[in-house]
Amino acid sequence: MNDTMKKAAIEADPTVPIIRVTRDFATTQARLFRAHTDPELFVRWVGPDGMTTTLDRWDANTGGSWRYVAARDGVEFAFHGCFHEVRPDRIVQTFTWEGDPDGVALETLTFEDLGSGRTRLRTQSLCDSFESRDAWLRSGMEVGVDQGYAKLDVLLAGTGEGAEA
Amino acid sequence: MNDTMKKAAIEADPTVPIIRVTRDFATTQARLFRAHTDPELFVRWVGPDGMTTTLDRWDANTGGSWRYVAARDGVEFAFHGCFHEVRPDRIVQTFTWEGDPDGVALETLTFEDLGSGRTRLRTQSLCDSFESRDAWLRSGMEVGVDQGYAKLDVLLAGTGEGAEA
Repeated sequence: MNDTMKKAAIEADPTVPIIRVTRDFATTQARLFRAHTDPELFVRWVGPDGMTTTLDRWDANTGGSWRYVAARDGVEFAFHGCFHEVRPDRIVQTFTWEGDPDGVALETLTFEDLGSGRTRLRTQSLCDSFESRDAWLRSGMEVGVDQGYAKLDVLLAGTGEGAEA
Repeated sequence: MNDTMKKAAIEADPTVPIIRVTRDFATTQARLFRAHTDPELFVRWVGPDGMTTTLDRWDANTGGSWRYVAARDGVEFAFHGCFHEVRPDRIVQTFTWEGDPDGVALETLTFEDLGSGRTRLRTQSLCDSFESRDAWLRSGMEVGVDQGYAKLDVLLAGTGEGAEA
């Protein structure tokens, strides 16, 4: 990992089994939303370095659903869920890592316009126990979060597809 | 309400913002599952007495979604969500009452075969704060739960469509 890479703020709530992540991006609300919903953009940044993400199902609309497989060095990790709500300032979705098939988190992402072409992303992951929440915190999730968002910074700064949103 | 009506056990978890409901039914796992997924059966029992439920969207499959409107005396209450997983022993879905459009609960229903034609239903509703969980508990939800399940008892005991599942 690049030592100078911008870090997301990751917070474990003391009273409810929630993980909150806050990260600012030098882009508009519309472009940050698009990077989370457009399938071709999403796979270009999600997850840690060296991981290749393949979408199996992707309908990023209210009532839609999704599934993707992330692979690195021949090891695959699959994830799936449904989209409870997708709107320009907010995405609510369920999230299961298929290695723990009965575990489910409820994730809420908000895109807050900070003005001057900057947008704050907040994610909230609600688990049904502190044990499952703390297992996520111990899993090294911050590496995937920080490396993924660093790729998203590059994508948003580029002159390619991401810049056209 | 009938004073002799069977009551569901409703429990507020002391450590996480969860409501758990437990209720036994004199029916098989398959029939109880069908009563929760077949649209024509579902509308015949869900909700309190005197409420008429109309499905607006209903795809009770993994990755599907749902919306219904309950009406009584000209007052309407609408609800919607997506189905994260639907399988014979378990349904995981999101749940929003549109009167509080940004509130979302994650609901897990399990159908446990007790043998001898009896099945235990357990529901778990996970909210993202104790405040929203406790607002549900104060809303009189137990009336809808108990009256709905009493209608379901009758439906399951009948010789009509519900009995054929």
